[in-house]
Amino acid sequence: MKTTIIGIAGGTASGKTTIAKILYETALKYGSVAHIRLDDYYHDNSHLSFEERRKINYDHPDTYDSKLLISHLEQLKNNQAIEKPTYDFVNSIRSTETELIEPSNIIIVEGIMVFAIAELRDVFDMKIFVDTADDIRFIRRVKRDMNERGRTLESVVNQYLTTVRPMHLTFVEPSKRYADIIVPEGGKNQVAVDILVTKIIDILKQK
Amino acid sequence: MKTTIIGIAGGTASGKTTIAKILYETALKYGSVAHIRLDDYYHDNSHLSFEERRKINYDHPDTYDSKLLISHLEQLKNNQAIEKPTYDFVNSIRSTETELIEPSNIIIVEGIMVFAIAELRDVFDMKIFVDTADDIRFIRRVKRDMNERGRTLESVVNQYLTTVRPMHLTFVEPSKRYADIIVPEGGKNQVAVDILVTKIIDILKQK
Repeated sequence: MKTTIIGIAGGTASGKTTIAKILYETALKYGSVAHIRLDDYYHDNSHLSFEERRKINYDHPDTYDSKLLISHLEQLKNNQAIEKPTYDFVNSIRSTETELIEPSNIIIVEGIMVFAIAELRDVFDMKIFVDTADDIRFIRRVKRDMNERGRTLESVVNQYLTTVRPMHLTFVEPSKRYADIIVPEGGKNQVAVDILVTKIIDILKQK
Repeated sequence: MKTTIIGIAGGTASGKTTIAKILYETALKYGSVAHIRLDDYYHDNSHLSFEERRKINYDHPDTYDSKLLISHLEQLKNNQAIEKPTYDFVNSIRSTETELIEPSNIIIVEGIMVFAIAELRDVFDMKIFVDTADDIRFIRRVKRDMNERGRTLESVVNQYLTTVRPMHLTFVEPSKRYADIIVPEGGKNQVAVDILVTKIIDILKQK
């Protein structure tokens, strides 16, 4: 089986998950597909105390176990199944559960930092960057975090200004230059979604 | 006949003509296609003296006869042929010759300002912005203007700094936000070209 690995990057609340889901649902109809989130590859920091783990900057490329992800993607390319780690976001450690991912025609790898990690970039056959204006992304994030996660405006703003925004400017935004194609506005951009969906169907029909 | 109108914008020497040509050649194999350059729609300034015409800022949206172009695109959408103007760049006037453009499945409209003119934007079914770094674009332009047009470095730099660059920052760069899809690096970006070519073929196969 020939595997096409698609990377989807973009800032927080840029709309990359919406794009990833649309491409995933499309691919399911024509072949096999897996959706991998970079966040499941946070390093296992269970040797640290909970307090120490809380202090980790989770918006930095080094917090990801890129080596494990790259070796998993290489295994999938070689038609070997993998046991994908899952992350326990409540306790900030790698969960004891894993998820079996079978070799698939299309592998979608999604995360803010997927183009910011140099060795990871080379693995992708197609690199899509979802580019949404910074203020629009903040508006989406604050609505989500307050409405769905019960957080206060002050706590959201504080986290945004101290880590999310500086790490975005340092790592995520500059990684846009490595994209093959840039999608403004995310999943609501019907023309771009339609172009990408057409390509996915074409890849799968040729297999 | 259903007509799809594709706009291709981007700064000087961004690679938009390369993309336009690849899409044109692709479309020719599967249907009918026309390629229209915005520069052929410069206003006819034959009522001005040559000296006055030389002083016109040709990197400004107002130097284009957008109304004529829009009405031509509407005619093409209504399956009516048009007589496209052509421009006499030596004398800086509209040429007396026109070019017959027949109604086509795909109409490609290319120019630095095609998304900077608000009324024109609404006409496009697909808006592609070719986004290449400013220094790379300058390097391409200076090589082209010195090698192919026999100009001096000083003259190229002078024109670039006095009109090309300020107009790019004022009109072209901000118009990127209206694009449906952004192609970094122009025609050498094989992955993006492949995605767009696939979409063109799909449009034409469905007709």
